[in-house]
Amino acid sequence: MLVWNELDSQAQQKALTRPAVSAGAEVQAAVESIISMVKARGDEALLELAAQFDGRISPRLCVPTIEIEQSELNLSNELKAAIDQAYSNIRKFHELQLPKPKQLETQPGVSCELRYQAIDAVGIYVPGGSAPLPSSVLMQGVCAQLSGATTVVLATPVKGSETIHPAILYAAKKCGITTVIESGGAGIIAAMAVGTPSVPKVSKVFGPGNAYVTMAKQLLSQSVPGFAIDMPAGPSEVLVIADKTANPAFAAADLLSQAEHGADSQVLLLSDDRTFIKEVSAEIERQIALLSRADIAQKAMENSALILVESVDQAFELSSEYGPEHLILQCKDAYSKLDKVKNAGSVFVGDYTPESAGDYASGTNHVLPTYGYSKTYSSLNLMDFFRTYTVQTISKQGLTELSKAILPLAQAEGLDAHANAVAIRLNSGRS
Amino acid sequence: MLVWNELDSQAQQKALTRPAVSAGAEVQAAVESIISMVKARGDEALLELAAQFDGRISPRLCVPTIEIEQSELNLSNELKAAIDQAYSNIRKFHELQLPKPKQLETQPGVSCELRYQAIDAVGIYVPGGSAPLPSSVLMQGVCAQLSGATTVVLATPVKGSETIHPAILYAAKKCGITTVIESGGAGIIAAMAVGTPSVPKVSKVFGPGNAYVTMAKQLLSQSVPGFAIDMPAGPSEVLVIADKTANPAFAAADLLSQAEHGADSQVLLLSDDRTFIKEVSAEIERQIALLSRADIAQKAMENSALILVESVDQAFELSSEYGPEHLILQCKDAYSKLDKVKNAGSVFVGDYTPESAGDYASGTNHVLPTYGYSKTYSSLNLMDFFRTYTVQTISKQGLTELSKAILPLAQAEGLDAHANAVAIRLNSGRS
Repeated sequence: MLVWNELDSQAQQKALTRPAVSAGAEVQAAVESIISMVKARGDEALLELAAQFDGRISPRLCVPTIEIEQSELNLSNELKAAIDQAYSNIRKFHELQLPKPKQLETQPGVSCELRYQAIDAVGIYVPGGSAPLPSSVLMQGVCAQLSGATTVVLATPVKGSETIHPAILYAAKKCGITTVIESGGAGIIAAMAVGTPSVPKVSKVFGPGNAYVTMAKQLLSQSVPGFAIDMPAGPSEVLVIADKTANPAFAAADLLSQAEHGADSQVLLLSDDRTFIKEVSAEIERQIALLSRADIAQKAMENSALILVESVDQAFELSSEYGPEHLILQCKDAYSKLDKVKNAGSVFVGDYTPESAGDYASGTNHVLPTYGYSKTYSSLNLMDFFRTYTVQTISKQGLTELSKAILPLAQAEGLDAHANAVAIRLNSGRS
Repeated sequence: MLVWNELDSQAQQKALTRPAVSAGAEVQAAVESIISMVKARGDEALLELAAQFDGRISPRLCVPTIEIEQSELNLSNELKAAIDQAYSNIRKFHELQLPKPKQLETQPGVSCELRYQAIDAVGIYVPGGSAPLPSSVLMQGVCAQLSGATTVVLATPVKGSETIHPAILYAAKKCGITTVIESGGAGIIAAMAVGTPSVPKVSKVFGPGNAYVTMAKQLLSQSVPGFAIDMPAGPSEVLVIADKTANPAFAAADLLSQAEHGADSQVLLLSDDRTFIKEVSAEIERQIALLSRADIAQKAMENSALILVESVDQAFELSSEYGPEHLILQCKDAYSKLDKVKNAGSVFVGDYTPESAGDYASGTNHVLPTYGYSKTYSSLNLMDFFRTYTVQTISKQGLTELSKAILPLAQAEGLDAHANAVAIRLNSGRS
């Protein structure tokens, strides 16, 4: 346990410092060579990379439509129902976010509009790893579906002689995705950015990934004009604010559910109650032993801190400074304290709102800014699948009035032709 | 004149290819050294850089409040009124964009909310160059003001023994900006990203700039956690779609008002009428001679093309492919053709809507995605000054129902602790 007010400022800073993550020059060099390979040899390069990195034998890239269509035949009723329920909640919450065009006459004869356009072609990357991640498909796929994107490509690595998990395919089916590519890593990101015979070119790629995937997203978004990515990636993290009214077993379970994500996860508990922190600590010991991913969780707990603060208000201040991806509030009148929240990706209010509810099924998106980016970046939302543009329509009369603003400003900025484009119209006989 | 359907595909591609812009390794090295300098020596470094790059003698960085307050005393009534009118229109259109929180029960006892938070501290960069750019201050400053950001820093270079232009200060005053820094280039971007004694640290920097500014924005947004930038920068561009009903003098004036921005500007005219294109060409010759920036406009016209297309519909297709920053529609029933528009930053409809209206005063924002980024990036809008986050509040009963989705998904993804965080709550005696 750290006692915040007894730490010097250096130790305070250290307690809130995230483990350093920096992709070395080797990662960049490796990714640059993969990008060149895919640009030069397309699908062939993807198959070589799959053999090299995933031990893949099958020369298949595209999953046949029938496998997607029939995916539910290979799912338990329970898992199918779970995907249906999660899909329904995520869809409801994201439908609420569908943008509406806006229009206004700023002055008579000067009409301005804000319009929205779905990003036409999007790619969704779902990392591989130790288990399939149907929830990642849902979180991104529902947005693509609601936006009306015309091309949606789902890509995920498949290892060795395994087959793609039916839960991934069923989640894709729910989201209306018909293009599923069995390919992962930096290679498939490059393929989606530039297009190959099997992989449609997309304009924006979403989804988390390892250091190579992240590097590929970064390099390609800087070098392919018009190609964009979702948000900077980083290790997952949770901050729990709890007072003595909270249940230490719940708080411990929440900290551990973050810790099991990866050894680089960071978990923080801030509480104003010394006894509570001790109880949480004991609960962590007890619960961690029972986890299948105990070793990962144990490592993550080593980066983490249980901190005694002076007051719940101080906890909110520290949380705002840290900017957690997930913020859990287990304190008296938690909901009424939401106005103290700043810089959080998603907030979980009260004793019965564990992070795993948002990870899977409450309806909110689980793709969230982490590593301090929650100070400036949004949680993934439907607007990430749209772009905004403006339209103006001006009458001759409107332009006459507006010229009183345009002409002096164009003159002050030394832009003759800007002024001339107005003057020539006002001096014209046509109306 | 190019005749689209007579070009081979290579020539077609060339006609729509933007001039290459790539900052060399020297720019990156220079910017990296400037960033280190500012990190190490703060204000002192900024003053040295101002002396070196802007020939600045004054050791002043912050403009005293009284100069901002009294700026209008040094402005003509006409320019003051122009700024007032432009401010009013821009403000009205952006007020329309103020976000409203949204809330929904996705299922009984599961409440999900989308909330908005203003980005606390923002920086606005206004480039120097041959003339002051009060319109850049307004476009960004109005957004910062409406968002309620608590820290707003305006930075602009001042050359030699010049003083900062009162139009810049008056525009800042209208937007409620009290921190104006006389400093430009990569150095001030670094100062805003990390903070110095005179320059408050900000979380997001907006505004255009030269290759050094752009490189600084890019490098700092990748290396300072939580620090973000507005959008990729590139040369300005316009595409005009016109048919024989359009006025060739107007179209020529619009092409030139884009061309005078810089030698790297790109201007394109697409028309289905050969005679019209010839008339526009003659008008360009006539009008260009009268411009004070004729040499710049002339150079830009060399990168540009007047293209004869088969039909107005084909023009819309090519425009969508190109993705212009500014799109001007001077054709029959232009407004009713808006549904054919894709990938444009801002659209100008009809004979009396020149681009300069949007550049200064119609109310729309003139900070727009260019260089093909209008396929994925939005025009600058109020949401760029906010971030979105989510909140969920679940009752015990709600969690019980939701667990039917959470538990099978957590199990499928091999995440025990995620399941346990739910199970421990449902098995608890408290309610």
